[in-house]
Amino acid sequence: MLPTKAYAAQTAGAPLGPWQIERRDPKPNDVLVDILYCGICHSDIHFAHGQFPGAQFPAVPGHEIVGKVVQSGSAVTRHKVGDIVGIGCMVDACRHCVECDDGEEQFCAGMVGTYAGVEDGKPTYGGYSSRITVAEDFALKISPKLPPAAAAPLLCAGITLYSPLRHWKVGKGSKVAVIGLGGLGHMGVKLAVAMGADVTVFSTSEKKRADAQRLGAHDFAVSTNPETFTRLAGKFDVILNTVSAKVDYNAYISTLKRDGTLVLLGIPDGPVELDAFGLLFRRKNLGASIIGGIKETQEMLDFCAEHNIVSDIEMIRMDQVNEAYERILKSDVRYRFVIDMATLG
Amino acid sequence: MLPTKAYAAQTAGAPLGPWQIERRDPKPNDVLVDILYCGICHSDIHFAHGQFPGAQFPAVPGHEIVGKVVQSGSAVTRHKVGDIVGIGCMVDACRHCVECDDGEEQFCAGMVGTYAGVEDGKPTYGGYSSRITVAEDFALKISPKLPPAAAAPLLCAGITLYSPLRHWKVGKGSKVAVIGLGGLGHMGVKLAVAMGADVTVFSTSEKKRADAQRLGAHDFAVSTNPETFTRLAGKFDVILNTVSAKVDYNAYISTLKRDGTLVLLGIPDGPVELDAFGLLFRRKNLGASIIGGIKETQEMLDFCAEHNIVSDIEMIRMDQVNEAYERILKSDVRYRFVIDMATLG
Repeated sequence: MLPTKAYAAQTAGAPLGPWQIERRDPKPNDVLVDILYCGICHSDIHFAHGQFPGAQFPAVPGHEIVGKVVQSGSAVTRHKVGDIVGIGCMVDACRHCVECDDGEEQFCAGMVGTYAGVEDGKPTYGGYSSRITVAEDFALKISPKLPPAAAAPLLCAGITLYSPLRHWKVGKGSKVAVIGLGGLGHMGVKLAVAMGADVTVFSTSEKKRADAQRLGAHDFAVSTNPETFTRLAGKFDVILNTVSAKVDYNAYISTLKRDGTLVLLGIPDGPVELDAFGLLFRRKNLGASIIGGIKETQEMLDFCAEHNIVSDIEMIRMDQVNEAYERILKSDVRYRFVIDMATLG
Repeated sequence: MLPTKAYAAQTAGAPLGPWQIERRDPKPNDVLVDILYCGICHSDIHFAHGQFPGAQFPAVPGHEIVGKVVQSGSAVTRHKVGDIVGIGCMVDACRHCVECDDGEEQFCAGMVGTYAGVEDGKPTYGGYSSRITVAEDFALKISPKLPPAAAAPLLCAGITLYSPLRHWKVGKGSKVAVIGLGGLGHMGVKLAVAMGADVTVFSTSEKKRADAQRLGAHDFAVSTNPETFTRLAGKFDVILNTVSAKVDYNAYISTLKRDGTLVLLGIPDGPVELDAFGLLFRRKNLGASIIGGIKETQEMLDFCAEHNIVSDIEMIRMDQVNEAYERILKSDVRYRFVIDMATLG
């Protein structure tokens, strides 16, 4: 179901038109970026499989983009030709609402998604592509300290974990748990450890124990072992749930300390069921978080450069994307696929 | 089902012993209090009706107590004979755990409930009674500015609303909603208005609109009118849900602004069902809160004295308690029954 050129050509009756449209010429505040690498996010798969409401095809997924500026508009001041920049899930926003004013563009009603968005009346196309035109304010600076391929997943997976860690004030000595050690979870462990937290990984089996330790986790708990929840009762300030499948939220809430928060980053199909008494008796919270604002994404990238944090990646060719999708659906990736865009024929 | 002396006498086979036990003599740090007034909390009804796990009878409910100190132990420093004091839901706690150290005794695992608790190996008996012995630290000072009868409900209903308003940082200009205008809700309106918030009352019908306005609410919204949720979309920083019955949490969450919190004070039977996407797209939260700590309860009483806040009460005689219970179950009280303990024969 990958919306490649071949896929689009096969789509019965679908016009080939829109996705073949040339990138618009940069406006005065735009930069034109040659894409070097693009990470594969689970959202790309949902989107390509038509599981997003309103998804239109043909389309180009990809919102973990690292590339080189090859052209910049006359009014551009933040980037110059030759700079390595990153582009995440957004390419623009309204810029004058309270969310934009607060640097929380991800919540702006006029936010333009990197793909499947609409900009100047035209669809936006993502990072599985050779080039992208983007407003300079939505291109992030990538430090030369960061290897560009492994930095690509920071643009979505990285900020998705960094933002809630900051929002819920994780710092030295905080007790943090990460549910699920995948593309998101492994970034959560690295970032929380770098922030000085005491980090526990919850996983469904023993399989990833060694990896969790290698990534810096201080504890590893098998969630299918009932003793886990007795042992860890009342321990955590913040739990980041990176798993979209339904899990026993009440069991995890029992491992929060007073005023702790279970933060949902993966959202299940159907309603979440909670025993509210579990929240009541230590004033616990259920929250959720989605990526982060532009300023915070830059802060995250700078933090990663300072702490030598990138994603663990497996580099693939463009013609391996369908196979990569299948492997992601089987959780067979440690921990993020990145497409080498030089392989895009 | 009210556990009066008559009820106890009628209880087949139940020993009359325990509840007839004399109050223990005050220890050096205790005060003996003549109870003047006791509010009726909905919890009392649940308890009297055997709906609390582990409830034992005979028992004496009541945890909204105002009385006069008639005797004080040799080590008592906070209260003297003749002082008017209040006693809420707790009469002691372990005093050395992290919850106690933080002034959050309500979350102490060793917290002793005012009734149905165990202290020195004996059951505790609540405020539908002539006297109570209590550790001086758990007796609160009631300002002479506060009328003692109408102050009684502050000890539970008052702190139940005050604590979350403070915890979730309500202040001047905050947008606050209160779901349900009953014994809890009417205190929430008065307190939030006094804190400078812009307050909306959600109610199931028009019936309480005038009352809401009289109490200081700035807006009144009928929750059974679907337009309500469109009109108020994205408005509130904090919503205090005082209703125990199941309500449409998702609809209320839609009226929160970014980073807003729906706080459950009433807990429904069975699980709470949530659409987690409703939390995700503006990083909203679901929380819960139960009474408050001793220091905060004193702060609340002082705040009420400063702002002339008491409960709207209907005074009853002791022999009207069963009738009051029935009226509470029909929501036929504006807004709190208080027993005049001088009528206890």
